[in-house]
Amino acid sequence: MSSILVAGSVALDTVETPHGTRKAILGGSATLFALSACRFAPVRLVSIVGKDFPAVHVEAFHRAKIDTEGLEFAAGKTFRWHGRYTPDMNDRVTVGVELNVLADYQPRVPESYRKTPYVFLANGTPAAQAAVLDRMIRPDFVCLDTMDLWIRTARTDLVRLLARVDALIINNQEAALLTGTLNLITAAKSILRMGPKAVLIKKAEHGGFLACGREIFSLPAYPTEEVVDPTGAGDAFAGGIMGHIARTGDTGAKALKQALLYGTVMGSFAVEDFGVEKLVRVKPAEIEKRVRLLRRMITL
Amino acid sequence: MSSILVAGSVALDTVETPHGTRKAILGGSATLFALSACRFAPVRLVSIVGKDFPAVHVEAFHRAKIDTEGLEFAAGKTFRWHGRYTPDMNDRVTVGVELNVLADYQPRVPESYRKTPYVFLANGTPAAQAAVLDRMIRPDFVCLDTMDLWIRTARTDLVRLLARVDALIINNQEAALLTGTLNLITAAKSILRMGPKAVLIKKAEHGGFLACGREIFSLPAYPTEEVVDPTGAGDAFAGGIMGHIARTGDTGAKALKQALLYGTVMGSFAVEDFGVEKLVRVKPAEIEKRVRLLRRMITL
Repeated sequence: MSSILVAGSVALDTVETPHGTRKAILGGSATLFALSACRFAPVRLVSIVGKDFPAVHVEAFHRAKIDTEGLEFAAGKTFRWHGRYTPDMNDRVTVGVELNVLADYQPRVPESYRKTPYVFLANGTPAAQAAVLDRMIRPDFVCLDTMDLWIRTARTDLVRLLARVDALIINNQEAALLTGTLNLITAAKSILRMGPKAVLIKKAEHGGFLACGREIFSLPAYPTEEVVDPTGAGDAFAGGIMGHIARTGDTGAKALKQALLYGTVMGSFAVEDFGVEKLVRVKPAEIEKRVRLLRRMITL
Repeated sequence: MSSILVAGSVALDTVETPHGTRKAILGGSATLFALSACRFAPVRLVSIVGKDFPAVHVEAFHRAKIDTEGLEFAAGKTFRWHGRYTPDMNDRVTVGVELNVLADYQPRVPESYRKTPYVFLANGTPAAQAAVLDRMIRPDFVCLDTMDLWIRTARTDLVRLLARVDALIINNQEAALLTGTLNLITAAKSILRMGPKAVLIKKAEHGGFLACGREIFSLPAYPTEEVVDPTGAGDAFAGGIMGHIARTGDTGAKALKQALLYGTVMGSFAVEDFGVEKLVRVKPAEIEKRVRLLRRMITL
């Protein structure tokens, strides 16, 4: 069982949804990814927090066996994000962002992390993502996340980075923005030509899509009864995918399809409570049960 | 190979989409259904047109081996609908509706149709749909379509009719409206409790969903390269489903899953040109090719 390195943000989030408000709860892309992936394989965390970061959250990482040697404690305040969801939760507005310690952060990959075989570059500037990748020694499988902002403002860096990674995880709007087509298959093929051997497209409540070489695969979302907080669903999804890959050591098309099942299920848990709550309390048997149901839903 | 009876509208549609405008082209729910289902089994048409209905369209029905004994030619003008799609084609406005001969239409099922084993009640008032069903003699499988208007204005009639049919085809918004829940599985279970043994939920570009007894099944949409005219996609979808069922004579859960593949594929052809154009020109081999691709897309 090989380790996964994740580089991304650790945040204190204030989240408002129709189900309530939570202030300064544990969040961030690397956090959600790590607490999802750690259910399948050991995780190493590269990120930064400020002096105000509650020790109880570091405890939560340690309880989940997440290696925090790469978590920097800097002078200043932790990155904070405040979001408010629309009543139907299909959209959100960012009420406020305080970058704080993240503002001038240069990710530092500890020496002991450099040979980690599985790497997830969570959403961030393509330049910072490339800097992390530069530090890695022959990783087996590198997966990249990105967002509309970087597609619009740092396309050249992003395209250069795409040629260096094995997989891209992206949502359907971002895929359309990156490739100029709304057609999922055309978009996926266009991304594969940019370098990655696999592209995984998230479609929120409409499931996920995988293109890997000439294989394409489509999976419905897990039918969650109630969405409480959609924040971080994509990172939990990525965590399930990378976790399954690291656990099996298999990066072939067939294994990626299985990984998409696990990603979809971990995303479904993430949205059922605020922040990381459900993700940390779900039992392994519950994960497997949802994977079985999802598999049954696509069995002819 | 048993016959299918469809009762619904035959129309002359004026359609405006970003791809162009077509005036008074052949349309209507029964038309689209019939021209889709006839690819798999003989179809009998129960509908009405006016004296202005072009003979060339009757010819098109006959060329497709559609039995038009149940097609009434009345004094007056054919039902006309005029719709305009939004640029992204996810929504449309009805520019005009002329009910004409449809206004006081009481569907007449010819004596020779009364023992047709497969029945599709295309969208219409639940009262008119029930009147058609009243005329049928022990059909094997009755499938019902409906719309938001009847759910809002004729719920009692609709619920009473639901207890008399084998399957309901509905889109996801209508399912939510009928059951009061946005959750697909909860909605489907609630509909099954109303009577049907199967419910098929259309999710447009996000595919289809089937609940049959305790089985649930989800299928992505066929990834069409270009949507030219979405009108009638749902009826072509229903046509593929009923066509496959009539062809095989099997109404079990496994057969319904296969039928959903055919429905999804027929819907994908319908939207690729205006009106019935693509539906009538597609070759059997092309249908099977898309079914194979769709099947591959859900194969783990």
